[in-house]
Amino acid sequence: MDLVGLCKAAKAAKYELQKLSTTKKNEVLMEVSKVLLENNEHILLENAHDIAAATSKGLSIALIDRLRLTDERIAAMAEGLVQVAQLPDPIGEVIERIERPNGLLIEKCRVPLGVIGIIYEARPNVTVDAFGLCFKSGNAVILKGGSDAIHSNAAIASCIRQALKNCDVTEDAICFVEAVDRETTMQLMQMADDIDVLIPRGGAGLIRSVVENSRIPVIETGTGNCHIYIDDSADPKIAKEIILNAKTQRIGVCNACESLVVHEAVKNTVLKEAAAALQEKHVEIRGDEAVVELLNCKPATEEDFGKEYLDYIISVKTVASVDEAIAHINRYNTGHSECIITQDPTHAEQFLNEVDAACVYVNASTRFTDGYEFGFGAEIGISTQMLHARGPMGLKELTSYKYKVHGNGQIRK
Amino acid sequence: MDLVGLCKAAKAAKYELQKLSTTKKNEVLMEVSKVLLENNEHILLENAHDIAAATSKGLSIALIDRLRLTDERIAAMAEGLVQVAQLPDPIGEVIERIERPNGLLIEKCRVPLGVIGIIYEARPNVTVDAFGLCFKSGNAVILKGGSDAIHSNAAIASCIRQALKNCDVTEDAICFVEAVDRETTMQLMQMADDIDVLIPRGGAGLIRSVVENSRIPVIETGTGNCHIYIDDSADPKIAKEIILNAKTQRIGVCNACESLVVHEAVKNTVLKEAAAALQEKHVEIRGDEAVVELLNCKPATEEDFGKEYLDYIISVKTVASVDEAIAHINRYNTGHSECIITQDPTHAEQFLNEVDAACVYVNASTRFTDGYEFGFGAEIGISTQMLHARGPMGLKELTSYKYKVHGNGQIRK
Repeated sequence: MDLVGLCKAAKAAKYELQKLSTTKKNEVLMEVSKVLLENNEHILLENAHDIAAATSKGLSIALIDRLRLTDERIAAMAEGLVQVAQLPDPIGEVIERIERPNGLLIEKCRVPLGVIGIIYEARPNVTVDAFGLCFKSGNAVILKGGSDAIHSNAAIASCIRQALKNCDVTEDAICFVEAVDRETTMQLMQMADDIDVLIPRGGAGLIRSVVENSRIPVIETGTGNCHIYIDDSADPKIAKEIILNAKTQRIGVCNACESLVVHEAVKNTVLKEAAAALQEKHVEIRGDEAVVELLNCKPATEEDFGKEYLDYIISVKTVASVDEAIAHINRYNTGHSECIITQDPTHAEQFLNEVDAACVYVNASTRFTDGYEFGFGAEIGISTQMLHARGPMGLKELTSYKYKVHGNGQIRK
Repeated sequence: MDLVGLCKAAKAAKYELQKLSTTKKNEVLMEVSKVLLENNEHILLENAHDIAAATSKGLSIALIDRLRLTDERIAAMAEGLVQVAQLPDPIGEVIERIERPNGLLIEKCRVPLGVIGIIYEARPNVTVDAFGLCFKSGNAVILKGGSDAIHSNAAIASCIRQALKNCDVTEDAICFVEAVDRETTMQLMQMADDIDVLIPRGGAGLIRSVVENSRIPVIETGTGNCHIYIDDSADPKIAKEIILNAKTQRIGVCNACESLVVHEAVKNTVLKEAAAALQEKHVEIRGDEAVVELLNCKPATEEDFGKEYLDYIISVKTVASVDEAIAHINRYNTGHSECIITQDPTHAEQFLNEVDAACVYVNASTRFTDGYEFGFGAEIGISTQMLHARGPMGLKELTSYKYKVHGNGQIRK
């Protein structure tokens, strides 16, 4: 099917999906889980084609690892669907009820967004995860994955369509774009009549391209240049543990810490201790003048302070006050996750109020910015924009609302 | 100031505005109201320049009327600000509180969007209304009005800046773009680093241009191709009154009815009566074959069914069932306001659930889609998109949220 036909099919499917009962949706999710496990061998075979192509193309070991499926990874995808089935259904909730003096009853009701387009890179698990969340929230989904994962993604999408068919639900609940060229991606981003929302999932380059070229409203699941500010009243032990955790517990994720901001009063104590612990974990430190003098480390450039390293590197900036720390963070951060380590409730309050980010922490690791950790269940991504949804996006964030207005002949005066 | 400087100034202002107390914000709104009234003569003088230019350019009477300010209209703008001051402040509300097993306390708190850009046409009152709503919800605003209203808008913006100064609040809470060329508008739509949201207010052409060219997230306040479906169980009196009200109470507004869909079983009764009443009000009817035969009216083309007339014209389509009515409406509507006239609760329920629009009505006029009528107070526009806000957008819809996370040393396992 060509792209236009595919988009029309998804749009037609959305009207069917919004009518599905919770029971039926959960039945489908369980069936997809089952069909995936049954087709384990076939999926691995198709994945092997992708791995072979990636190897001969000379892709990095890290990229090939992201691409690779195993029995365990397929089992984890299948288990993820079972978990989504267990989450409460957001659709149909009456969010607000307004009675007007003229007798009108207005109900604000949660409804699906409609058709969600997902443009992603080389992680085949996104095919399953995105379908699961979009389907449970009553949305049709159009998936456009990266060329490196095309065989794996196509195999998975066809399992999902088989499961939908087995349950007598429209297969167009998932529409998979087989073409992998850039032109198709550009064309997809113009289909504003059929696609309601576009969510890019991948690196900074992909996200920038979608934001710049899409005519469809985009939810930006952005990069994270996350800071930890060590206040002059910071507890040294808490500071060291949180910094180590936020920087090194998992290096390549968007909620990892990329930059420290340190009150100059504690640079000789708290910073020194934290820096030693980081260096023990092979983290390279790049500091401003005061830090270079103290630690004899590499100097940080302007570019360093704006950088999401996703690597064993951290920048360090000293400041003279919490105000200066906030100004520095608001200048360089990406609106993701920011933390203050402090024992001073006034400083904590000021930081929480004035730092502009989706998630602001007092004395806890930035690594908690995550749908599961927030208790939302699985997430489709972490939004760094202001519109619609901010921070971890679970099922609720994949919905909109409509006003149902009940009258008995009211007209406007 | 050049556009880049102006955007930077607005961004700097947003950090100050988010800290303002409700009392202070209301004080400013009252002061702006006062300064506007004090400068009544000056504003009228500047408006006279615009009117003179518009007249010599040969603009239509309707356009010149929109442009014209009078004592009454300035008083109404000033009174609007007093009303916004009386509305509850949305900022600071804790929307949700989540306690996690690991002891983290997560508060979801309402915050301003940041910097809101408004691109509008020739209504000078938008300058005041948009400022009032954006300011009360803690946002800085960048205003880019149409060239026809430039003198009026500049005079009003300068009153607002004077009032801000009188109250010791940053004047950059309102940044007014003096340039009126198209190039500046295009440049403004690229300032995604400084502007958080763009809201176009005006006709279909303006909105399309913004959606197509903006790199900044847009809230589409769209056109309204609103339908009324007359079910076979419709009460004839209710049908006639609602149709007349929705079509003719005010012709040029987005929530006016533009198209009737009629169950064929009642075309000889309910439709005939409603059509006679419409024709008495000089409304031209354009119908499908059955309607032409019945009323001897003009035939409706495909284009008619998709058209927002904003005029004394209405299209009429006959259908054989509520399913067919819903399919027709979902094909042609713009996601604004749709109504069913019925005495059958099953049909009402189906229509409410399956018609895809911001507001769906049973037995009430579509003209109620309005911030005041919904009890929200003043509105910035009516959203026809799925993301962020749908339907009338009041103060709450000009906000986002952040998660404040309180810990005591938690790290991720």
